[in-house]
Amino acid sequence: MRKGVLVLPKPVLFRGREVLILDQTALPNQKRYISLKSAQEVAGAIKMLKVRGAPWIGVVAGYGLAIEAQRLKDKDLYSGLKRAGEMLVSARPTAVNLSWAVKRIMMKVGQKGLTSKNLRAMVKAEAEAIEKEEEKRSRAMAKYGAKLVPKDAKILTICNTGVLAGPGMGTALGVIYEAHLEGKKPFVYVCETRPLLQGARLTGWELMRAGVDFVLIVDSAAASVIDRCDLVLVGADRIACNGDTANKVGTRMLALLAKEAKKPFYVVAPSSTFDPKIKNGSEIVIEKRKPDEVWRCSGYRVKGMVRAYNPAFDITPACAISGFVTEAGVVRPPFKKGIRELLH
Amino acid sequence: MRKGVLVLPKPVLFRGREVLILDQTALPNQKRYISLKSAQEVAGAIKMLKVRGAPWIGVVAGYGLAIEAQRLKDKDLYSGLKRAGEMLVSARPTAVNLSWAVKRIMMKVGQKGLTSKNLRAMVKAEAEAIEKEEEKRSRAMAKYGAKLVPKDAKILTICNTGVLAGPGMGTALGVIYEAHLEGKKPFVYVCETRPLLQGARLTGWELMRAGVDFVLIVDSAAASVIDRCDLVLVGADRIACNGDTANKVGTRMLALLAKEAKKPFYVVAPSSTFDPKIKNGSEIVIEKRKPDEVWRCSGYRVKGMVRAYNPAFDITPACAISGFVTEAGVVRPPFKKGIRELLH
Repeated sequence: MRKGVLVLPKPVLFRGREVLILDQTALPNQKRYISLKSAQEVAGAIKMLKVRGAPWIGVVAGYGLAIEAQRLKDKDLYSGLKRAGEMLVSARPTAVNLSWAVKRIMMKVGQKGLTSKNLRAMVKAEAEAIEKEEEKRSRAMAKYGAKLVPKDAKILTICNTGVLAGPGMGTALGVIYEAHLEGKKPFVYVCETRPLLQGARLTGWELMRAGVDFVLIVDSAAASVIDRCDLVLVGADRIACNGDTANKVGTRMLALLAKEAKKPFYVVAPSSTFDPKIKNGSEIVIEKRKPDEVWRCSGYRVKGMVRAYNPAFDITPACAISGFVTEAGVVRPPFKKGIRELLH
Repeated sequence: MRKGVLVLPKPVLFRGREVLILDQTALPNQKRYISLKSAQEVAGAIKMLKVRGAPWIGVVAGYGLAIEAQRLKDKDLYSGLKRAGEMLVSARPTAVNLSWAVKRIMMKVGQKGLTSKNLRAMVKAEAEAIEKEEEKRSRAMAKYGAKLVPKDAKILTICNTGVLAGPGMGTALGVIYEAHLEGKKPFVYVCETRPLLQGARLTGWELMRAGVDFVLIVDSAAASVIDRCDLVLVGADRIACNGDTANKVGTRMLALLAKEAKKPFYVVAPSSTFDPKIKNGSEIVIEKRKPDEVWRCSGYRVKGMVRAYNPAFDITPACAISGFVTEAGVVRPPFKKGIRELLH
């Protein structure tokens, strides 16, 4: 990684029989790596958001299978991996990268005539290949995306879509890093991203270390800054064939805002985030998380008050999206055609 | 107050030489009244949001003058009240009720030929009249507003606009209380209202005590519930002659959302919140509060990170508003005409 972004740590380190992850629930106050030694531990870490971001959870699920393959006895290898794959996929329902990575590896596992040794090596190699490919995709997206960023651009973003969200430089934040490295001096309005504050905690932490200028806002203040922004850049967790996009709750509001203010709204996502099986947004399962995530952050729990509705994602309609920045270039409307071409 | 809303405490108690206020920065964890014994203490409490809500801060500013009149020596009475009035008005810039109440009392103070004793009695009587009138306005707004609420309505709201925000039953929440008292069983989606969580802390606390069914959401989740809502009800801090409305930051997003989803969006506000001197929203001063309000609530301050932009209000364009629920009925477009008639 080039100067500036170089200072950011790699949040996932695969070690054959374990995977080390930088615990994102402890950031930015504590920088600690934890060791995961089974598919179950990996699934738990994904569920608890210790590792997060659509591309990373796909990669880490792959490593979960590789670790599990090392643990399993020869006679249990196939059935154990199948069980582990199902457990990993069910850890979080919305990001498609998770099931995409598991399916890809399990397709290979299903091949006839492999020795146990070869099968273990193959799972490991495939998992490592997924990380490598995602890293390449990130760099390609960053290059394509940076062309959309004018000099001295003011950019609005939500959640964390950087080094902590995916291999390489991540997705939307990767575009901003690339623009920064190209000397365009981008300025970022970072939505804090309630309830778990991935914007405040993770994106703030990344941008400060990378030397990118930014300011934090409460999510509601997006409407107060949109007129000063040149564009909006966000990531994605699952994209339907028609372009409807599931991403962090709050993204839909930003898209409507951008449309009203006539500002471009780009989704930055690798092909692994597009789901060819999903026709439109209404078919995407939205993860509902526990009410106490809302209360816990507020620190103001009223006695006896437990009522909170806490969807982790929302659906941005395709009509509010200007384009998708992918590793193969920018997909523009009509999206159905462009997405079909991307995936074939 | 009738059954159900009866259980809510009065947050402002005027006692001649002091005003007791329920400290809204301590709610809901602590219920404590504090005593304010000078205009300066009143201005401080307004600035610190210990007392808040456009109607209440107007009323309390009036009481601040009444208390100050008791404290001042005869020879300093006029100049001292003038100074106190200026200090109170400058405590918060956006809500017009503050300057409206101070101006109204100072107009009387300026009359010729009053004895000091009469002047003190007059300031007290005028301040008490303002509270009484706002209480009447609240009840009238609630009645008019409740007619807009269907049976079993689902209502989206932001910030706190109830008993803690204004005399009587407040503004937008007053409408919901009235609908509740009329047996319409409203259900409320409460935006937590970052950064200071007036929705989670104050509206949650009020609705629970009043027995109105509700659920808390992060502000960004408004887009996830709008399709289930029948209408959006909000308060206001200042309304321009064309209907552009300053209210809690986040209100503009809710209005755009409601427009897109074709749901009615009503602003509930007494005539004292309309500013005949302001032509449109661009002339309204938006209070910028300290960045640490954003950080303090997050509990995740990155070392050396102080960058946050923290506007307390935003402007909702008149074109996104379905109507204004006032004490004189519902003002509908064209707003310029309706607002002119309301104020004359």
